[in-house]
Amino acid sequence: MSSGEFDLISQYFSPLSNQGAPAFGLRDDAAVLTPPEGKDLVFTKDALVAEVHFFSNDPADLVARKAVRVNLSDLAAMGAEPLGYLVALALPKDMQDIEGWVAAFARGLKQDQDEFDWSLFGGDTVSTTGPLMITITAIGTVDPGKALRRNGAQEADDIYVSGTLGDAALGLKCLTKEVVTPDSALINRYHLPQPRLDLGQNLWGIATSVMDISDGLVGDIRHLCALSGLGATIESDLIPVSDEFGKTLESFPLYKKLIWNGGDDYELLFTAPAHVADDIRKISKSLGLDLTKIGRMTKEKAIVIQASNGDNLLQGEQGYRHF
Amino acid sequence: MSSGEFDLISQYFSPLSNQGAPAFGLRDDAAVLTPPEGKDLVFTKDALVAEVHFFSNDPADLVARKAVRVNLSDLAAMGAEPLGYLVALALPKDMQDIEGWVAAFARGLKQDQDEFDWSLFGGDTVSTTGPLMITITAIGTVDPGKALRRNGAQEADDIYVSGTLGDAALGLKCLTKEVVTPDSALINRYHLPQPRLDLGQNLWGIATSVMDISDGLVGDIRHLCALSGLGATIESDLIPVSDEFGKTLESFPLYKKLIWNGGDDYELLFTAPAHVADDIRKISKSLGLDLTKIGRMTKEKAIVIQASNGDNLLQGEQGYRHF
Repeated sequence: MSSGEFDLISQYFSPLSNQGAPAFGLRDDAAVLTPPEGKDLVFTKDALVAEVHFFSNDPADLVARKAVRVNLSDLAAMGAEPLGYLVALALPKDMQDIEGWVAAFARGLKQDQDEFDWSLFGGDTVSTTGPLMITITAIGTVDPGKALRRNGAQEADDIYVSGTLGDAALGLKCLTKEVVTPDSALINRYHLPQPRLDLGQNLWGIATSVMDISDGLVGDIRHLCALSGLGATIESDLIPVSDEFGKTLESFPLYKKLIWNGGDDYELLFTAPAHVADDIRKISKSLGLDLTKIGRMTKEKAIVIQASNGDNLLQGEQGYRHF
Repeated sequence: MSSGEFDLISQYFSPLSNQGAPAFGLRDDAAVLTPPEGKDLVFTKDALVAEVHFFSNDPADLVARKAVRVNLSDLAAMGAEPLGYLVALALPKDMQDIEGWVAAFARGLKQDQDEFDWSLFGGDTVSTTGPLMITITAIGTVDPGKALRRNGAQEADDIYVSGTLGDAALGLKCLTKEVVTPDSALINRYHLPQPRLDLGQNLWGIATSVMDISDGLVGDIRHLCALSGLGATIESDLIPVSDEFGKTLESFPLYKKLIWNGGDDYELLFTAPAHVADDIRKISKSLGLDLTKIGRMTKEKAIVIQASNGDNLLQGEQGYRHF
């Protein structure tokens, strides 16, 4: 791209930043932030590549919002509040209508800035011979010492998930036409994850470990298990699914396993001792968000997805690891 | 890449982070930082794409160090000290010897971590069908209200640059064989910029505006000019060049203009009133770093590179803009 095109792009991003500190309308070498008093800062960075994490022909505003929300989901898993973000954008050299795409992308960023009450701190745009790529660095705040961690699960802790699992993965099958009766609610879950920020901010002192589910329940829970030196047994029938998921599954029963190996859920996975079950019910009620107990942490270092007949549904699966 | 490969990669990056806060050995969803008391934080993000900002066959440790230093140069331009950084890496799907490359890349990061006294806060690795790409978010600290800015230049201020210009751009010509008598010092300047952190930290109260030169003197000074509503006249003969540059130029005189349109210099460009010239000489002496006055800010909103005969060498050039 020419320097004129880069100038054009900066015109779309500048209004997303404050004209004063921290970002000075993106006109400086860097942003300068006076940290909010009495807060710790939380940092996370996620990269998304076209045709891997989204499709080139997805609406650019949805791509922006997904990129933002994937990062917000990491903040949610730490119990943090959004503060600001930086974006790096690699645009394909042969891209058609760069200005139109960037305008829509910036519109998506703006929409979610307003929704999540944060602002753009900075960024960079480059051109690439490869696919479009977005990286976002998200910065959040949390009360000192109150960041949620992945590493505190105890033997016999209950395992919970928020919302429903598998929707986004099944939505992806709709987009790729593997499901021939596409459901717009499922597709919407793929395009637009819901970062569980309110939930994360309520789990301090309740949950013993927390993370977000991005790579699928089984792929992710092994991190919790590894850090606590424990295993996990999850009852397959307890994993919460949406009505839309259940309905689509009637015609495509083989996709049931997307609830544990699908990915893109961006729900929170957390562990908690039995004696806080009432607190969790109250949080669920106050947030209007289902929090479902799906299993328990075990001394035996294995991940088991247990069918009602006692079989481990992961036996022979790629996701199965005895570690 | 398989999840096993991603695990492998994380093994190389984990030792670059603290095992406790802020990064918890990269085992959590995000890093948690208690901000250093009485400091502002500075944030910047730069992306580098293979075959644009570096070559795929450049040694991976040098690629890492260049990516780091490009970001450190932005911190230098703000007068900040390095604190920590996040890295996102997109690795080509068809890459040979991923482990070898990542090991060398991590080694380069470590070498510059030690040199610049900061640590890894987090990151992400994805695979791509396109070229290798690196984005780094750099975080620095600065005394409150003492971040250097681009926007304070005054009419008749002197214009200074640190070090010498054009070396990296001519080094690139050596690498691409456009210069058939390659000079290793010039190539080294291309591979390994020297972020002028010490200089930046000494310019508060001296310089009226500061930025780093990444896209070439002319391309970058227009930002200073635009923000101050002024122009700049630079005397071509005053632009400092290295002995190696001068020597190579004897055989390739047409490359002289790389000193103003070459890019990749990562020297600091700053403006200052005449009455601080002595202070600048003292800073130069104490740092052992040449600081050269190359021109002055003008009321007329034009950028002029003036030859000794008074001609504007930018007349008819791509970099020439009358704004």
